[in-house]
Amino acid sequence: MMTLNEVAKTLRQKNNIEILTHHYPDGDTLGSAYGLCLALQRIGKNARVITSGKVAQKYDYLSSSVDKSDFTPGFIMSVDVAAPTLLGENQENYKDKIDLCIDHHKSNSMGVKDSYIDHTAASTAEIIYDLLKIMNVDITKEIADCLYTGVSTDTGCFMYTNTTERTHIIAGELIKAGCDFGTINRAMFETKTKEKLALERMVYDTLDYYHDGKCAIIYTTIAMQERLNLGDDEMEGLASIPRQIEGVKIGITMREKKNKEFKISVRTNGDIDACAFCQQFGGGGHNAAAGCAINGDLITVKQTLIAAAKEILK
Amino acid sequence: MMTLNEVAKTLRQKNNIEILTHHYPDGDTLGSAYGLCLALQRIGKNARVITSGKVAQKYDYLSSSVDKSDFTPGFIMSVDVAAPTLLGENQENYKDKIDLCIDHHKSNSMGVKDSYIDHTAASTAEIIYDLLKIMNVDITKEIADCLYTGVSTDTGCFMYTNTTERTHIIAGELIKAGCDFGTINRAMFETKTKEKLALERMVYDTLDYYHDGKCAIIYTTIAMQERLNLGDDEMEGLASIPRQIEGVKIGITMREKKNKEFKISVRTNGDIDACAFCQQFGGGGHNAAAGCAINGDLITVKQTLIAAAKEILK
Repeated sequence: MMTLNEVAKTLRQKNNIEILTHHYPDGDTLGSAYGLCLALQRIGKNARVITSGKVAQKYDYLSSSVDKSDFTPGFIMSVDVAAPTLLGENQENYKDKIDLCIDHHKSNSMGVKDSYIDHTAASTAEIIYDLLKIMNVDITKEIADCLYTGVSTDTGCFMYTNTTERTHIIAGELIKAGCDFGTINRAMFETKTKEKLALERMVYDTLDYYHDGKCAIIYTTIAMQERLNLGDDEMEGLASIPRQIEGVKIGITMREKKNKEFKISVRTNGDIDACAFCQQFGGGGHNAAAGCAINGDLITVKQTLIAAAKEILK
Repeated sequence: MMTLNEVAKTLRQKNNIEILTHHYPDGDTLGSAYGLCLALQRIGKNARVITSGKVAQKYDYLSSSVDKSDFTPGFIMSVDVAAPTLLGENQENYKDKIDLCIDHHKSNSMGVKDSYIDHTAASTAEIIYDLLKIMNVDITKEIADCLYTGVSTDTGCFMYTNTTERTHIIAGELIKAGCDFGTINRAMFETKTKEKLALERMVYDTLDYYHDGKCAIIYTTIAMQERLNLGDDEMEGLASIPRQIEGVKIGITMREKKNKEFKISVRTNGDIDACAFCQQFGGGGHNAAAGCAINGDLITVKQTLIAAAKEILK
């Protein structure tokens, strides 16, 4: 593994830099990628961000200040990508070409020689912030908006236990740098469309409790999605609902993505290992938030999850 | 107004200190009061907290480390109390006896000669933190839990625009001091009883939009409260729902407290002045969050609010 000083030195020497995000990108992978991209452009480099899968519209502001320029990539890196499969549609083209991997996932399995992985960072954006300080790049308002988005979204707005003193110090610095945190947080955490409200009501009807109320499961189906006419990205953000209920140790959200294909999101308060739970099904993630995919019909998949929850709650 | 150094000096000289909170106490008034009380006890003073109205059970941990001792009060102060009426049941006994007022509300009208009011502080707990640093009191884990509760709850977990760099620096210091922020935030922001979930579903049914979707109003009635068998404190925390909806500039929550008596909570994104809105009806608060009380039947009170919203949205 490289030191962050070595990462800084490497980036100073390279040009024509492509930055890969993970599939179905979230605030941290996008905020880290665009924040770094803006910083590299600021010191005269060609740089661009390569995403995978649909990017939700609410993230549009992250890329709005990036210069679009044409260049042949000379250096390829990934940010916040924990495993090759998470490159999504870019896996095939890029998986053997990545020169540098920056990440904060403990379970990182990218297998890139030149890596900087710090799992004590609550977000990859924290690492990028430290990197830019070492590189002595001015944190502009636009860069601060990107990095704050990563810092805030990956900690549930400083609510989750991955938050550290360092997280708050960096958030304070980004506010001082002029980031528009109020608008960002409203867009990330608070803004709901009328359709999303309708979806939540529908999801409440699917809520069931198991194992003395220690496990709660909700689900969405394609039929529900079609009835409300919602896009895929609008089906996200329900996973915290079952975990929020008093007494629930493991909250599971099942989302039917195609016929008999479910995306599973698992949330705990950290005492139950969500990552271990999901690894049984080929998934992964963090201690309190993890995911996996299971194929089958609603009832079978749900029974599988209920049985697995029983085991892990023992 | 006193300086914070003068406040520190005064408290060093006094003993048998009573600390008053505001009526229906929230996380900031309680966290500030108990944090200060613990600190004063730590430096050998007699101190106690006097609350008004029912204290929600979720705040029990704030008072659990306080020593209960009997003494005749020699010095009376208020924290986070913006107006004499907000002393609630203590107004009659205490309103002319307050020796020191510490607060962060711009609209403070306590009229106490010895006051320290800093409206740039996002919470009164921020002021208490600075005070304890000046007084050179160790921030124990228990004091940190109290102050973090104030800092976090008054900023919506660092989400609202009253949050500053200082807020984050203090939060980082309190995490370093060992506060159990994960548990606190879960209890304050995330934990819902099954009954609360049922209430939210019911409230969604009352949601209506006005003035091109810029105003949203929800309400609860005593009948709903009785049907779900919820206590008064369980009826709180709905006020953010209407403001969260895309396009809504002013979100209004009406809560029937007694027959024909409504408590009104107003939330905006800061561009509409919620405090000015509520002052028309004898209430007050902050720019983005304010409240008032209006008597009348549901339909009349609602029509009054709709008309007032039309004016302020002009």
